[in-house]
Amino acid sequence: MNVNGTAYRSIWEQPDGRAIQVIDQTHLPRRFVVATLSTLDAVAHAIIQMQVRGAPLIGITAAYGLALALQVDARDTALQAAATRLAATRPTAVNLAWALQRATQALTPLRPEARAAAAWRLAGELAAADVAENAAIAQTGLTLLEQHAKRRRGEPVRVLTHCNAGWLAAVDWGTALAPIYLAHDQGLPVHVYVDETRPRNQGLLTAWELAAHGIPHTLIVDNAGGLLMQQGVIDLCVVGADRVAANGDVANKIGTYLKALAAHANGVPFYVAVPDATFDAACPSGAAIPIEARSGDEVRQVQGLDHAGDVATVNLLPSTAAVSNPAFDITPAALVTGLVTQHGVLRPQHWQDHV
Amino acid sequence: MNVNGTAYRSIWEQPDGRAIQVIDQTHLPRRFVVATLSTLDAVAHAIIQMQVRGAPLIGITAAYGLALALQVDARDTALQAAATRLAATRPTAVNLAWALQRATQALTPLRPEARAAAAWRLAGELAAADVAENAAIAQTGLTLLEQHAKRRRGEPVRVLTHCNAGWLAAVDWGTALAPIYLAHDQGLPVHVYVDETRPRNQGLLTAWELAAHGIPHTLIVDNAGGLLMQQGVIDLCVVGADRVAANGDVANKIGTYLKALAAHANGVPFYVAVPDATFDAACPSGAAIPIEARSGDEVRQVQGLDHAGDVATVNLLPSTAAVSNPAFDITPAALVTGLVTQHGVLRPQHWQDHV
Repeated sequence: MNVNGTAYRSIWEQPDGRAIQVIDQTHLPRRFVVATLSTLDAVAHAIIQMQVRGAPLIGITAAYGLALALQVDARDTALQAAATRLAATRPTAVNLAWALQRATQALTPLRPEARAAAAWRLAGELAAADVAENAAIAQTGLTLLEQHAKRRRGEPVRVLTHCNAGWLAAVDWGTALAPIYLAHDQGLPVHVYVDETRPRNQGLLTAWELAAHGIPHTLIVDNAGGLLMQQGVIDLCVVGADRVAANGDVANKIGTYLKALAAHANGVPFYVAVPDATFDAACPSGAAIPIEARSGDEVRQVQGLDHAGDVATVNLLPSTAAVSNPAFDITPAALVTGLVTQHGVLRPQHWQDHV
Repeated sequence: MNVNGTAYRSIWEQPDGRAIQVIDQTHLPRRFVVATLSTLDAVAHAIIQMQVRGAPLIGITAAYGLALALQVDARDTALQAAATRLAATRPTAVNLAWALQRATQALTPLRPEARAAAAWRLAGELAAADVAENAAIAQTGLTLLEQHAKRRRGEPVRVLTHCNAGWLAAVDWGTALAPIYLAHDQGLPVHVYVDETRPRNQGLLTAWELAAHGIPHTLIVDNAGGLLMQQGVIDLCVVGADRVAANGDVANKIGTYLKALAAHANGVPFYVAVPDATFDAACPSGAAIPIEARSGDEVRQVQGLDHAGDVATVNLLPSTAAVSNPAFDITPAALVTGLVTQHGVLRPQHWQDHV
């Protein structure tokens, strides 16, 4: 997508094949910073610290991390150790495990000296496939937005989204935002209500994406969406996902469940945009999905710009204050109107018939 | 309540009867600052800017504001103008209109020269009555906490609360927190999960109150409560209210509704602690309650302490970024397990039979 007149993806290869570059999302929306990752260490750190984030992007980044590790040591033990280390960086998004499993299955049969190049190539293929799949998700979601546009008779379709499931969270396009970009590009008016998404404020990434693309939007605190749905101000909700269990339960950013409850109570359709890598047939239900607990400092501290425009952090609470910081919650399948996929809009309880 | 060894209320009279003093809540929890309010202007400003906040405290402060106005000019037109001005400071909490109506009804028949002293005395009586009523609410709520304590067999009763309905929001005790203070003082173990309550972060006031009283608590972002209820970590929710309509619908801080939905979905009792002044028989339902829209800067900016411990503000978004900031939402009566009042625990649909 376009950033100040330059086309960017969230991740790209260095021409020498010895490093990847990513947009360091810990600096957004305050600063646009590109980080170069050339080692397994750097990649693991980038995922843990959320320099890269979003289920699809985490998977792709891990695939490149494996390739970088294999450039140093491509023996069986090193391959397994690198995969294990990367898999442990974040527990909830299944795309990570999916990408690492795809890679290790493809690479293990190869001679060690062939593995690094093959891993690099595979990571590139996964990245390209992610872009293509999200373009297909955009098409599926567009049909939903078009239905709402008819009812709105020329007025903008009002979409609520939580967290960031835009192009920053994938390689390009995004998942939940992909249909919104496509609709806007085709002249279908949309207005996006963007949840702030405490504690990490990924809503600010969404607002930054939408502003760069010229899409009308309004930022709201996470508390506000229920009222907006009561007031009839939201036509539909669209969010991304970190894992979809066999029964259709959806793990996504903490707070998603609350919006799904409000949507259900107010007759607002609640859609979840999902690439295939986010489906986990081995996971029977949401109760089996591990919920990441992150540092309480994410709650205690907030980063922004001071009055001089410099990056600054303020403490809301002393470092000793007791805080709990679960990063995801579970939206039961019964609250999900449909899964927006490259296979069309799927009923969450029956996704396995189509994926 | 106790602050660093000194007993405080949220509001108190100057001995000369020419001013009131309040804890300036815009500085908490960062600084403990007392503000002196000696004019109608100062009182109106304090309510609008939320130096004082919380439905019960707003009502009491307005009553004192009327008395201060009458010390300058006690003619009929001045009395009406002052009441009108104070009533317009904040729209949602009905306690404000209630206190002003009580005062104007009592003062209008008096000779102008008698009004100022009578208004001051009346404000003091309303303040004393608020303390007594909240002590009664504490007793009502304690019976609920005792029921949960039996089931918990000595483990702490886990209460989720939203915003601040503690002693800072009233004159003393608070509403939602009053039973928690009483339980703790009587040796019944409680643990309070405190919603941060963006955008104004009144949860930090609640955490500050609880810490000062030695009550175990955990601060969570507003997004987290749904997951905690899914996980069975919350025994009950208790919140305050800004207005209860004739049909039992409850207006309270934005985001309350989302927690009520989650409580209902997970079989967690959801209680609303309410003094009589918060009931509005003239308001048929939640749809008729005006919802205050506050400045978008509350969403765009966050205040905290910098690394040196100085108060600092950071901007999350540019001042031009589009933001919507409704301050309250409506929790339908059907989601409210009971209203905790001085008359006992009332079913929300039938409060008019008892109040």
